[in-house]
Amino acid sequence: MHPEPAERDTVAGLGEFGVIERITSGRPQSGSTLLGPGDDAAVVAAPDGRVVASTDILVEGVHFRLDWSNPRQVGRKAIAVNLADVAAMGAAPTGLLMGLACPADTPTEVIDGLTSGMWEEAASVGVGIVGGDMVTAQQIMISVTALGDLAGRRAVTRSGARPGDVVAVCGRLGWAAAGLAVLGRGFRSPGAVVAAQRVPTPPYAAGPEAADAGASAMIDVSDGLLADLGHIAEASAVSIDVWSDRLEVHQRLVDVASALGADPLHWVLTGGEDHALAATFPAEAVLPPEWRAVGTVGTGSLITVDGRTYDGPSGWEHWRHP
Amino acid sequence: MHPEPAERDTVAGLGEFGVIERITSGRPQSGSTLLGPGDDAAVVAAPDGRVVASTDILVEGVHFRLDWSNPRQVGRKAIAVNLADVAAMGAAPTGLLMGLACPADTPTEVIDGLTSGMWEEAASVGVGIVGGDMVTAQQIMISVTALGDLAGRRAVTRSGARPGDVVAVCGRLGWAAAGLAVLGRGFRSPGAVVAAQRVPTPPYAAGPEAADAGASAMIDVSDGLLADLGHIAEASAVSIDVWSDRLEVHQRLVDVASALGADPLHWVLTGGEDHALAATFPAEAVLPPEWRAVGTVGTGSLITVDGRTYDGPSGWEHWRHP
Repeated sequence: MHPEPAERDTVAGLGEFGVIERITSGRPQSGSTLLGPGDDAAVVAAPDGRVVASTDILVEGVHFRLDWSNPRQVGRKAIAVNLADVAAMGAAPTGLLMGLACPADTPTEVIDGLTSGMWEEAASVGVGIVGGDMVTAQQIMISVTALGDLAGRRAVTRSGARPGDVVAVCGRLGWAAAGLAVLGRGFRSPGAVVAAQRVPTPPYAAGPEAADAGASAMIDVSDGLLADLGHIAEASAVSIDVWSDRLEVHQRLVDVASALGADPLHWVLTGGEDHALAATFPAEAVLPPEWRAVGTVGTGSLITVDGRTYDGPSGWEHWRHP
Repeated sequence: MHPEPAERDTVAGLGEFGVIERITSGRPQSGSTLLGPGDDAAVVAAPDGRVVASTDILVEGVHFRLDWSNPRQVGRKAIAVNLADVAAMGAAPTGLLMGLACPADTPTEVIDGLTSGMWEEAASVGVGIVGGDMVTAQQIMISVTALGDLAGRRAVTRSGARPGDVVAVCGRLGWAAAGLAVLGRGFRSPGAVVAAQRVPTPPYAAGPEAADAGASAMIDVSDGLLADLGHIAEASAVSIDVWSDRLEVHQRLVDVASALGADPLHWVLTGGEDHALAATFPAEAVLPPEWRAVGTVGTGSLITVDGRTYDGPSGWEHWRHP
């Protein structure tokens, strides 16, 4: 148990301006930050003449638990899920805005951890947190808006998949789901899958690379591979068949599944939160490095695995669309 | 009392995708929305090559009360406070992103009201809600990010005021504070000041006009005129003197103050939430229509009213900076 924090060690003790000073002072901005925190709004470079923008909210108890993750890990995840959305359009990030809601008695060490994690993840792609807002609320909530630049590329939407296209993925699948299964049973190891649940590692650079290689549709895998391919299939009015033998089922997932009596392929097919990228490419396209073909696009509207509707352990019915 | 809503009439009954469909379908987008809701991210025009971006969060019970305002009014306010930030940089809005957190048992009529208000305010400046996120939380929280375009203008920051500049304001001051005083005592009239508290009416177009007229610094009045001029003074390392006889103290404010035993000038000097614009201009500048000169910039660091430190009813000490 922590001792009850003194008032000066809480958000209320520091005050709004104190917290904002603590979050922003001395942090590195990038060249695309033309005007950073401290004014009515930020100004970010948009050299392409278009700006890609995405917002995601993470809520304590819904999207993260501070007994499963430390604040720094939560901060990294809040930024990562937004950067993955920008990557999935084929864009590179240019700046981030942060909204932070928390109870007045939140210890400053929690705020320090959250924001350190956010800055770390932002720095990993060379951008800064250019602005934000800080408010009082009953539970911790982090709202992030990521901005990105397409550098002349066509935005890769969900609706461009065509029959005959190849389906490919880049990044890890099933790891966060394995980590969640481990944490849910009260374990803290193996560390690799637990770490994957706490902080996703999306392959950010693979998004623009896929766009340059001619990707016809792209999405980041937040709901699970089959569910997210379902979003592409629906937006593109196509069917998608996934070849299970092409999916990487890492030995660690096999080991964890064996210990828990679970099916590792099910995690790979349906586990969300890894924020891998899934895309479709014309058959003649040369896949960029790190991308691997795992299926094909056809006519119709079904999502199938090896030609059949998937009905794994927890049921695929929910996600099958008409 | 409302009857307990049936499950299908709540957010939980509709489901995330149902709510998002309800919020976005059939709504008008503007020419600057190159890709609207429904993909991993939106794409918004940034013709200037820079994008202005600002995030604000409104929390139920902190920034609004659903027994004082209806959901539509809250939705309008959530958008207005963000658009005012964009205007205060000298930019015109190009698009909005919305994050909406609410309990699962929130009636759909509340969501419909909130989002209708948001779309109305967005439409009033000709832009759309281009994307967003929808999550479950213990209380209603609205996070908005506004994007804007400078159209070649220099961004007007808080730090450009110089001794000799004129201080000017555009928009209403003190009305929202008067409305708050009325609501706080359990009244619902006079309607004009209560309406001002529920939905601010910032003079959006006056921001770019001030920039074109050469404004040296600008801010939107969210904390109160003296407090926000204090932000300009601090960022610009100047002093500011406000001439109280130049401030408009509308007869309605005089009447309300008289009824409540309050000082209407105090509301004008310290009341926030009207989101008027305050700016400084070089002495030789011609103020745009609607702007009125209300003070001067000097050396030093004090904020004064008629040459003296202001010590109105609730005390000005808190805002005086060294």
